[in-house]
Amino acid sequence: MAAPLKLGLAGLGTVGASVVRLLAEQRALLTQRCGRPIEVVAVTARSRNKKRDVNLRKMRWLRDPMALAIDPEIDVFVELIGGEGDPASTAVEVALRAGKSVVTANKALIAKRGVELAAIAEKQGVSLNFEAAVAGAIPIVKALREGLSGNSVARVYGILNGTCNYILTRMEEAGLPFADALKEAQALGYAEADPTFDVEGYDTAQKLAILASLTFGTKASVASVYVEGISSIAPADLAAAEELGYRVKLLGVAVKTETGIEQRVHPTMVPRSSAIAQVMGVTNAVTIDAHGIAPITLVGPGAGGLATASSVIADIADIARGARVAPFGRPVGQLTASKKAPMQRHEGGYYIRLDARDRPGTAATIATRLAEQQISLESIVQRHRDVAPAERKAGSVPVIMITYATSEDAVRKALAAVRADRVISGKPQVVRIEKN
Amino acid sequence: MAAPLKLGLAGLGTVGASVVRLLAEQRALLTQRCGRPIEVVAVTARSRNKKRDVNLRKMRWLRDPMALAIDPEIDVFVELIGGEGDPASTAVEVALRAGKSVVTANKALIAKRGVELAAIAEKQGVSLNFEAAVAGAIPIVKALREGLSGNSVARVYGILNGTCNYILTRMEEAGLPFADALKEAQALGYAEADPTFDVEGYDTAQKLAILASLTFGTKASVASVYVEGISSIAPADLAAAEELGYRVKLLGVAVKTETGIEQRVHPTMVPRSSAIAQVMGVTNAVTIDAHGIAPITLVGPGAGGLATASSVIADIADIARGARVAPFGRPVGQLTASKKAPMQRHEGGYYIRLDARDRPGTAATIATRLAEQQISLESIVQRHRDVAPAERKAGSVPVIMITYATSEDAVRKALAAVRADRVISGKPQVVRIEKN
Repeated sequence: MAAPLKLGLAGLGTVGASVVRLLAEQRALLTQRCGRPIEVVAVTARSRNKKRDVNLRKMRWLRDPMALAIDPEIDVFVELIGGEGDPASTAVEVALRAGKSVVTANKALIAKRGVELAAIAEKQGVSLNFEAAVAGAIPIVKALREGLSGNSVARVYGILNGTCNYILTRMEEAGLPFADALKEAQALGYAEADPTFDVEGYDTAQKLAILASLTFGTKASVASVYVEGISSIAPADLAAAEELGYRVKLLGVAVKTETGIEQRVHPTMVPRSSAIAQVMGVTNAVTIDAHGIAPITLVGPGAGGLATASSVIADIADIARGARVAPFGRPVGQLTASKKAPMQRHEGGYYIRLDARDRPGTAATIATRLAEQQISLESIVQRHRDVAPAERKAGSVPVIMITYATSEDAVRKALAAVRADRVISGKPQVVRIEKN
Repeated sequence: MAAPLKLGLAGLGTVGASVVRLLAEQRALLTQRCGRPIEVVAVTARSRNKKRDVNLRKMRWLRDPMALAIDPEIDVFVELIGGEGDPASTAVEVALRAGKSVVTANKALIAKRGVELAAIAEKQGVSLNFEAAVAGAIPIVKALREGLSGNSVARVYGILNGTCNYILTRMEEAGLPFADALKEAQALGYAEADPTFDVEGYDTAQKLAILASLTFGTKASVASVYVEGISSIAPADLAAAEELGYRVKLLGVAVKTETGIEQRVHPTMVPRSSAIAQVMGVTNAVTIDAHGIAPITLVGPGAGGLATASSVIADIADIARGARVAPFGRPVGQLTASKKAPMQRHEGGYYIRLDARDRPGTAATIATRLAEQQISLESIVQRHRDVAPAERKAGSVPVIMITYATSEDAVRKALAAVRADRVISGKPQVVRIEKN
């Protein structure tokens, strides 16, 4: 039997404690699977005295992550502190420079400094694994980095934030406005007191930047991701989606287009029959469209102590077995710069909802403005019935349109013209459609 | 740059030709990802003259798989001949004994001789990879062997045969009887002229034996799998399933019970809201229930040249990168013997459909017989309406029952008693329920 793999674990929150517990419970199985035992030999966390309900007796307690990162006894530095800044950031860098492999669940850090850290790992000949950074227990990093390594992937997209999916699910199921569904999510612990990071799409953007890098070899960069959250989605949009055969999901989408790799996060209408549309509540899912084959979709828990620990341990097990893969699937020198997607050049179908003035000529004006931009309509619904009293506005009638594929630029121009014509009240609602 | 990985490829059917084509198309990407080029240096197939539409000019043509298996130039023997017997079986063994790694898509061979071949691979220090043997392009072998290697998995189940899922989908969608849906599948090339192997569940059983081994460390053994096909399923069952909130799928299920690992293939009622219930047509899917976390489901194409080639190439890429994992996830010496599941001890809910004699006392008799076996009913539907004319039998009325969890033994005894009472005509229909 080979020597044990020795871990230093920084961070003993829900995930850290789950990792310690799962490693102990699964010790025999992991030893079988890896050919050697895996041992946590040292730990560190902000508070030593917090009650944690895990057995830390055989582990040395170090004063801070930096001391742990250079501890001569450890082979692997497991970073479960979180956050793009220090202490996590410097500790991971120091550990890599000291020749330790690193396993982390830190999406913010990998999205921000992943390429730079991967370069250090590569130079040192060590691993930098981050399966848990995206979609919790779903082995999506491994699937993209290894399982589909020979495919020409055209598009990868997913539901990467359980908070948003829970809110959209409840809005659809119970007809709740966004604010009420958010409150419910907060009461259940699915959303933070300040929900901005989740509901405005930034969390999804970090994960998407990582997926795009693994898939297309771009340098992970959140700055290259177009981001739009779900706070503007109204129950009326979910009801219209249902009627038209769609569901609204907050998707992160990375797709190869003629102009490059487009990375975007926004509320999206997906066909109700698609695998991704079936994903409800806090569950995450990722779909991969590879050339010439039907889509592959991975669905599972995106958060939670044990779900995240599951992926952390798989990453550790790979190191224990001696398997080392380039962090982003190819050498850092071959990763290409990411460019921000010019959304005005985005092409696709659009859902548009307008509050039209209820007077003669309105429909004709709207139709003319769309036609001027060469936009063809797949469907248009205008009606007085079926508007919930709370959403009814005096003198206005909702008009809902689904366009055939067009450019975002055309949609923006047409709607600007419609607004200038003063035939609608308020801001038009626009949701991009993603076909499967 | 390291030396190229040299492949010998046996079998140039749809899959073999797709592998050659995809390796050529993705050469640059694969070289990046693996740190070395991958080259097919020699091939063999039954007919040399068949038109294949792939460029074989730079490859040596060997006279038979055996010659290829011991060819001194090759590092990896890629077996795409298929079938549990020769030439595939001996050629794979000979290649392993000659110190070559082997990549195969051959489920029949792995299900039959996998353990024995894994022992040779282990002794020789080479890889035996078979991602493509189960669920086509879905990276399920990798997910179970590596991605979830630290989890305590309680159950793995899936739709592993596209033919059956297509037939059940069409029976449900179009109300077709089994025979008509089968004919349609045959016309579309989804089912063989002799469909027995697929529709009676044997194909699923081979794949399940492999999944069970990867998950629970049992020795892959088809003989340990209880097998029941879909040919007895009637449109009436699919209609009743719909009404009761279920769908009927042919599942392969491996589950840890108090008496050991139960491996079974049979038509199954799954809750309509489950991820697996959404999988329609020829698509495959596998769900993994690990301790303490929500289920993980992988969905994708289960067959086809490119889908299978995708997994074959991922296996090859792992070898090119130098990653070697025990074929069944742990050393052969630690795999445990499989036992045939004693189905009479299976516990779960049951769907039962009877053609009851339409006369006083029938319902009471049936209820009494079930009660004698301590079977509680979740629901019972008996009615004269809603029976399609073609399925109506003079003097009989369908009775549909869903039981709470009970043992198969109890169900069999109760139904034997009901038959002996002569209150039903024909054979009772029984479908097991799998809860998510």
